[in-house]
Amino acid sequence: MLFYSDNNATVCPELLAAIHDANAGPTLGYGDDRWTEALDAAFGAFFGTEVRAFVVSTGTAANALALATLVPPYGAVYVHDEAHVVRDECGAPEFFSGGLRLVSLGGAGAMLDAPTLARALDATPPSVHTVQPAAVSITQATELGRVYRPEAVAALTQLAHARGLHVHMDGARLANALVALDCEPADITWKAGVDVLSFGATKNGALAAEAVVFFRSELVRDFELRRKRAGHLLSKSRYASAQLLAYVTTGAWRRNAAHANAAAREIAAHCEATLLEPVEANEVFVRIGEPAKAALRAQGFGFYDWGAAGSGEARFVASWDQDPAATAALCRALAATATT
Amino acid sequence: MLFYSDNNATVCPELLAAIHDANAGPTLGYGDDRWTEALDAAFGAFFGTEVRAFVVSTGTAANALALATLVPPYGAVYVHDEAHVVRDECGAPEFFSGGLRLVSLGGAGAMLDAPTLARALDATPPSVHTVQPAAVSITQATELGRVYRPEAVAALTQLAHARGLHVHMDGARLANALVALDCEPADITWKAGVDVLSFGATKNGALAAEAVVFFRSELVRDFELRRKRAGHLLSKSRYASAQLLAYVTTGAWRRNAAHANAAAREIAAHCEATLLEPVEANEVFVRIGEPAKAALRAQGFGFYDWGAAGSGEARFVASWDQDPAATAALCRALAATATT
Amino acid sequence: MLFYSDNNATVCPELLAAIHDANAGPTLGYGDDRWTEALDAAFGAFFGTEVRAFVVSTGTAANALALATLVPPYGAVYVHDEAHVVRDECGAPEFFSGGLRLVSLGGAGAMLDAPTLARALDATPPSVHTVQPAAVSITQATELGRVYRPEAVAALTQLAHARGLHVHMDGARLANALVALDCEPADITWKAGVDVLSFGATKNGALAAEAVVFFRSELVRDFELRRKRAGHLLSKSRYASAQLLAYVTTGAWRRNAAHANAAAREIAAHCEATLLEPVEANEVFVRIGEPAKAALRAQGFGFYDWGAAGSGEARFVASWDQDPAATAALCRALAATATT
Amino acid sequence: MLFYSDNNATVCPELLAAIHDANAGPTLGYGDDRWTEALDAAFGAFFGTEVRAFVVSTGTAANALALATLVPPYGAVYVHDEAHVVRDECGAPEFFSGGLRLVSLGGAGAMLDAPTLARALDATPPSVHTVQPAAVSITQATELGRVYRPEAVAALTQLAHARGLHVHMDGARLANALVALDCEPADITWKAGVDVLSFGATKNGALAAEAVVFFRSELVRDFELRRKRAGHLLSKSRYASAQLLAYVTTGAWRRNAAHANAAAREIAAHCEATLLEPVEANEVFVRIGEPAKAALRAQGFGFYDWGAAGSGEARFVASWDQDPAATAALCRALAATATT
Repeated sequence: MLFYSDNNATVCPELLAAIHDANAGPTLGYGDDRWTEALDAAFGAFFGTEVRAFVVSTGTAANALALATLVPPYGAVYVHDEAHVVRDECGAPEFFSGGLRLVSLGGAGAMLDAPTLARALDATPPSVHTVQPAAVSITQATELGRVYRPEAVAALTQLAHARGLHVHMDGARLANALVALDCEPADITWKAGVDVLSFGATKNGALAAEAVVFFRSELVRDFELRRKRAGHLLSKSRYASAQLLAYVTTGAWRRNAAHANAAAREIAAHCEATLLEPVEANEVFVRIGEPAKAALRAQGFGFYDWGAAGSGEARFVASWDQDPAATAALCRALAATATT
Repeated sequence: MLFYSDNNATVCPELLAAIHDANAGPTLGYGDDRWTEALDAAFGAFFGTEVRAFVVSTGTAANALALATLVPPYGAVYVHDEAHVVRDECGAPEFFSGGLRLVSLGGAGAMLDAPTLARALDATPPSVHTVQPAAVSITQATELGRVYRPEAVAALTQLAHARGLHVHMDGARLANALVALDCEPADITWKAGVDVLSFGATKNGALAAEAVVFFRSELVRDFELRRKRAGHLLSKSRYASAQLLAYVTTGAWRRNAAHANAAAREIAAHCEATLLEPVEANEVFVRIGEPAKAALRAQGFGFYDWGAAGSGEARFVASWDQDPAATAALCRALAATATT
Repeated sequence: MLFYSDNNATVCPELLAAIHDANAGPTLGYGDDRWTEALDAAFGAFFGTEVRAFVVSTGTAANALALATLVPPYGAVYVHDEAHVVRDECGAPEFFSGGLRLVSLGGAGAMLDAPTLARALDATPPSVHTVQPAAVSITQATELGRVYRPEAVAALTQLAHARGLHVHMDGARLANALVALDCEPADITWKAGVDVLSFGATKNGALAAEAVVFFRSELVRDFELRRKRAGHLLSKSRYASAQLLAYVTTGAWRRNAAHANAAAREIAAHCEATLLEPVEANEVFVRIGEPAKAALRAQGFGFYDWGAAGSGEARFVASWDQDPAATAALCRALAATATT
Repeated sequence: MLFYSDNNATVCPELLAAIHDANAGPTLGYGDDRWTEALDAAFGAFFGTEVRAFVVSTGTAANALALATLVPPYGAVYVHDEAHVVRDECGAPEFFSGGLRLVSLGGAGAMLDAPTLARALDATPPSVHTVQPAAVSITQATELGRVYRPEAVAALTQLAHARGLHVHMDGARLANALVALDCEPADITWKAGVDVLSFGATKNGALAAEAVVFFRSELVRDFELRRKRAGHLLSKSRYASAQLLAYVTTGAWRRNAAHANAAAREIAAHCEATLLEPVEANEVFVRIGEPAKAALRAQGFGFYDWGAAGSGEARFVASWDQDPAATAALCRALAATATT
């Protein structure tokens, strides 16, 4: 009964079928295949606007390639201190860009807010002496399972654009956010001012398929050269592209995310008193104490510690294929913990 | 009828089955799964010695990560001028290492030889003023479809080691070389002095699965941090690892390569007079003239030009799933060309 | 009447004389000269221990080369948020190292303290997923003109070494700190656990001469290759080396720093009520209000704003050659401001 | 009697006087001083056109910063195999640019020629798979002491520009070339199509002062940020800038180079039969045999070996301050060698 992360999940049937369909015979390599060539149109339809979409195999690659394309080596990227690019990518943004700097800011729910960003920007005047503000990167849903409303995204992007910064969104769990908000994909991305999006599918049912989606074609620049140079141009691109096509055209993204979000809400309903954050997507953060955590583990539940050592905090992540029985069992166990 | 490259091929049944088998239920991410954890043992059995084996999704990543782990930023890597790392990776070795230099050497059949290497090394004395010799990288089978005999590999590695250089082998087509030589995997790798191997499977039947195999564990160093930092640690590693396990344990590697090599030999037999290189693996290089190339294309054969513009040269690559009918048709067409 | 920075100062007579003495005739380039070859011994005598000392022409180069030699590309360097490496070097540490990360911490007087450092290190467990703690860098005197006592340095270095981190000291104003503490150079460097020192001379009377001093020879590693590769190996090294020799052997370092520190103390004595920090070296930070700052500028005093826009804060830096009349004038003007 | 390199030379009186003049009192740091601010105008007058000129302290920094500003990380720079950037900078261009590739070409006298360059460019079609042609870098005078005529420079720059490449000139010995050609500085630089010049002064009489001169202001781009980030923005810029001003305005450049060139010609006249290259600037390359070399060294002449070990080749470089007695002695010794 694994609640460590949504990357513990399997590949969903629609995407596995797409891999099979793509395996019918020979085709050209390195993206000159009909699946890869269909990505722009498919993502354009998904987002309701013209886009350029590029497939890569990991979210770290998507984020780092997007940022390296957007900012110069001496650029500063403003992020939340909890961001995946800060905490979980071993310095990939720094590596891909040739040494950019991530400037970490605070904010409840792992969300940036415009006043905090404005203060940080005010403190860095143009100068040859220090790294120069170049981009903002926000995560949707956030690393604490929260969801930016369209107007919150817009407030940040308006500020960023006014100061000459580009805006990147890490959408590793974009589908979970879309389902949570019950809005159109456009609403929290380009209509809210996002320039470039790391579009995640792997956590939500793909084998290994992510997209970098540019909403402004002039920002694509040398992305393709950087991708190849980083070893992220797949020779048999069709298999990853076919997954992405199935993901955005079959509704798998929505069904999968809905399942995961519902499981998280169900869990949250059984441990409301201990929640550290409102549960908006597919992650649940609780402070239940170390003894309760040990008890859960003894019952076979797998999950990560959260917070400082000994804090009694834990994170549970629900996946697209989370077994309802496991979810129910966790709910009972958490409820029992609460009443102890 | 595509003969562009073996990356035009599909995924072979054994490996597709392995993906299905690995899709049975949840498991931990980022390589903490039983498939990935079995790689060292499986590759150890394959090579007949203890190894460390790491999965990545592209050959460019395998090569660049291996070289960046072996050499410092100011290191020189001696390679053949035709090498994939020189011609086809958009500077990935330079990028991953922070600026190493590829020193290109000549040699028939895209093969390095020890005397040429010795002369190049003699010309670069130790000094703070220039890049320092750090590694040799050879390709097996070579980019011209030739195969290094074990003793040819050994001659290079002995020289390299005597001069303090590490030895990397780009084995994107290692299986084709093994079948051609009808030798044990050990014979042309660690027994011949290779330190680190890029082990290719994608061209020979995988979806997107390559391994970096270290024959000397002390050279692994910080490989895992570099892989993560480059976005090449797959969150759902099991699917790539499962392919690699199936590849080395089911004999798929040998069956697939044998099919491709046989097709290439068959093609070569029908155009002997125009061959640019002896056909030892699964690639055929010919000089048939531009009119003949145009004629073949008009008949539906796909293949790349070779050599300088207008040279009349062409490359045909046979894949593990090359349709025998297509091969036979190409043979007939080439034979007809020769008699025109 | 410039109080912007001690880099506004001239070259002191002892060092100018050394340049002349070194200009007597031809000598070998790139450091194979008797001045450069004498650096190890001269700095060894200065610090009372065996050292390796390397000349470079800027403090930014000294810091960045030292850090790049000490840490891997995925290394985290713990620094104070006010540190020169963070605020004033345009990302040089990131550039030289291939993407290290500066982790900024707080602390009064721009000083790191061991408990703060311990908390930060506790929050970064060993993992392939994030940048790895690799070094601590502290500035002596600090960017707020404060001075670490030997025991404060030792507390940090003991913690750092216990956690496997190296310790770098940015000694751009080391002489000012030594004079302030009236201690031996050894006391706040190697005896207190510092591994590598950026030894500044430019601010305190040199033309363009800094040293990187290694107190542990095994940490020198590939420093010389990195220096050359960064364009910081001077072909006519003798002129910079001769300055450094004169600086440490003639007592110029002490006389110059004593003059600057005394001027700062004199200034501080005339604006005690507005001081933001105790004045320990040659910098004075005050909050006197924007009108007072404007008044001072109208009288011909040059100095930088400090703090946020409109904070009314200012920084005055006294140089080795600060004209006593200018200092006295500033004192009078500040005193008048206070009584307004 | 040192003939190793012109970097063995002293600082010339005009430039030493300029350092003294610049030492008159305090001034702002980091280039906000009247000497540095005068560079654009002074170099503009020298070259007879509007330029942007930036001071750095080494030729390696000048070359690497210029190239990194001109080309992307995946850019290829076409150079002669003997070029300083290839052989003597420890990979600085690769480092500064984040991994560009130097593509080495042949050519008599260490000179590139247009047909050779054209063939190399023809072999690299636009593609995401390999590094992309981005710039050409030539050295004036060359590393073999030869001098490009204006029309030879123009032939290269016309080809380069037609193919979309920028042109960099390494002018470490530009003054020697100008004196040799007896032409205007404009003739072999911007009028011949050079975009950016590394302007050397150190070898020809400066203490440590080089300039990067942009003849097209739109190519300056982010040069100043890159310079700072590389630790090459001097805090006390005035001393280097004052040298450059004196160098270009007092005629020192011409007098110094004329002296050096004349000494080289004199040497050449005494060993004509052994010359490897025509002597056009201040370097003499000879094949006199190992015994003769040993004999010269026994008489106190210092010089570097050239060519392969045991080739009997040697290089003699004459400096701006070469003692005429030493030159005469070398001439006699060489003449004696010839008649032995």
